[in-house]
Amino acid sequence: MEEYDVIIVGGGCAGFPAAVYAARFNLNALVIAKELGGLITSTHVVENYPGFISLSGQELATKLEEHVKANNVPIENDIVQSVQRDGDSFLVKTELMEKTYKTKTVILATGTRHKHLDVKGEKELQGKGVSYCATCDGPLFKNKVVAIVGGSDSAAKEAMVLSGHASKVYMLVRNKLAAEPINVKRVEAISNIEVVEGIEVTEICGEKSLTHVQLSREFEGKTQLELGGIFIAIGQQPQNELAQSLDVTLNGRGEVIIDRLSRTNQNGVFAAGDNTDMEWKQGIVGAAEGSIAAYSAFEYIHHNFER
Amino acid sequence: MEEYDVIIVGGGCAGFPAAVYAARFNLNALVIAKELGGLITSTHVVENYPGFISLSGQELATKLEEHVKANNVPIENDIVQSVQRDGDSFLVKTELMEKTYKTKTVILATGTRHKHLDVKGEKELQGKGVSYCATCDGPLFKNKVVAIVGGSDSAAKEAMVLSGHASKVYMLVRNKLAAEPINVKRVEAISNIEVVEGIEVTEICGEKSLTHVQLSREFEGKTQLELGGIFIAIGQQPQNELAQSLDVTLNGRGEVIIDRLSRTNQNGVFAAGDNTDMEWKQGIVGAAEGSIAAYSAFEYIHHNFER
Repeated sequence: MEEYDVIIVGGGCAGFPAAVYAARFNLNALVIAKELGGLITSTHVVENYPGFISLSGQELATKLEEHVKANNVPIENDIVQSVQRDGDSFLVKTELMEKTYKTKTVILATGTRHKHLDVKGEKELQGKGVSYCATCDGPLFKNKVVAIVGGSDSAAKEAMVLSGHASKVYMLVRNKLAAEPINVKRVEAISNIEVVEGIEVTEICGEKSLTHVQLSREFEGKTQLELGGIFIAIGQQPQNELAQSLDVTLNGRGEVIIDRLSRTNQNGVFAAGDNTDMEWKQGIVGAAEGSIAAYSAFEYIHHNFER
Repeated sequence: MEEYDVIIVGGGCAGFPAAVYAARFNLNALVIAKELGGLITSTHVVENYPGFISLSGQELATKLEEHVKANNVPIENDIVQSVQRDGDSFLVKTELMEKTYKTKTVILATGTRHKHLDVKGEKELQGKGVSYCATCDGPLFKNKVVAIVGGSDSAAKEAMVLSGHASKVYMLVRNKLAAEPINVKRVEAISNIEVVEGIEVTEICGEKSLTHVQLSREFEGKTQLELGGIFIAIGQQPQNELAQSLDVTLNGRGEVIIDRLSRTNQNGVFAAGDNTDMEWKQGIVGAAEGSIAAYSAFEYIHHNFER
């Protein structure tokens, strides 16, 4: 059985940097990633990873992956089926290759899934007018009419970010706007945001790029709304199945609770990136948490398994 | 008087990313930096800023600065003389241009100074065999004989990192090795680390690059020691003068205490980078903290000055 100092589950903005740092600590490391690059690959332009003025999410992911390869850390493109504690170590089993690895520590960098509307056109027009991140993509929609789908506090925040770029922002809310009172007030005070409640998007339309959406009811006399962009902000789902199986403590949103050194409540288990309880979810933050997780794994191993 | 939403003091790995993010939040921002690029510019090769396999510290600093410029945030190359609370705002005065700015929030990204030995040759041979960061520069000294100056816990950790790269690591300790017991034990267990106590480096010698150092006493029959590299690890000094004047709480090492959202104990004052109490000081961590500080400044301003 192959043995490692650290197995990093996830190959995105947090997992890859964790691998780079693990190598710098001379740890014997392995990355196991279901999707190389992770969620950032779905963002068409990244302008907020400091150091790169503008590049695609895929390009950033590739740079991070190449950095790992330059440090000679192997990357397995596989799905981790289970992680089980085995004395002072962990056994990690994979689904596709059906391998079992032994490791002293685990870094969970499993990220999140964007919740999808699951309507016609959504998948086809992703990156062609359909976005899941206002902070990432907002500046691309300068002076355009856009909509944001969602009524949560974070949807309201995204709307406010968008209002600084777009000429008009419709907030399309299924039920009622349920943001923090202060944010409801703020949204109402911004003249180019219009909140439309009790409405759903039933289809996203366009040939090469988004042209309009179908609505569940009439709005301004029509069931169609012409748009230059649509932002789906109905939430994120942390991928926390492995954390749960290891009895790692989660918060109310299902996110892994970590401290400033990326440590979970379980000895030898660290976490980094969008699956953690950090409220400000950004690639650069995940990269830092990944580097910190590797540092903490190094500290843990050399302190003879005492936290 | 010019008015800003946020003034960022410091133009390094934390300050520049804070400015990028401030712009993304449509905050009216200004960077005031004494040294463009900050401390990283003294590192000759950076291989641990995820996304860049290898570049010089100066190149990374320039990339971060260009990112700020692409977001149209002005950068003043000046020294901040004082920051004073003025009602809900702050007045920031500069030394060279003798300007006074008004700002709603301040981000302190003032970094640290490496403590210097202050011996002959140290300054001249910096980047030519003299280094201040084992994690940054260690891999450049593969199979060479190196020395680390310092006897603290962090010096011991640096020695361990170096031992994985160099053929031999002398730890030159002025008094006695004062690392954590576990780290003393680890250092002793590593065959290519030799701790030499009660010794000082009095001169660093070499023409184009380091060749040897002068010692304060005989060691192995000589007062000279031939070396391929020397790492000065006698500590960091946080640049905390402005924080102190704002009654920001510091820890025992003089570092600004921040929470996970880069907030200090003072409303409207945020901090990021090496001057904070994060024990794992890395460019990537500072960049994340800077982005978080901008996020928190945005939140603070839009919550009408309530924290």
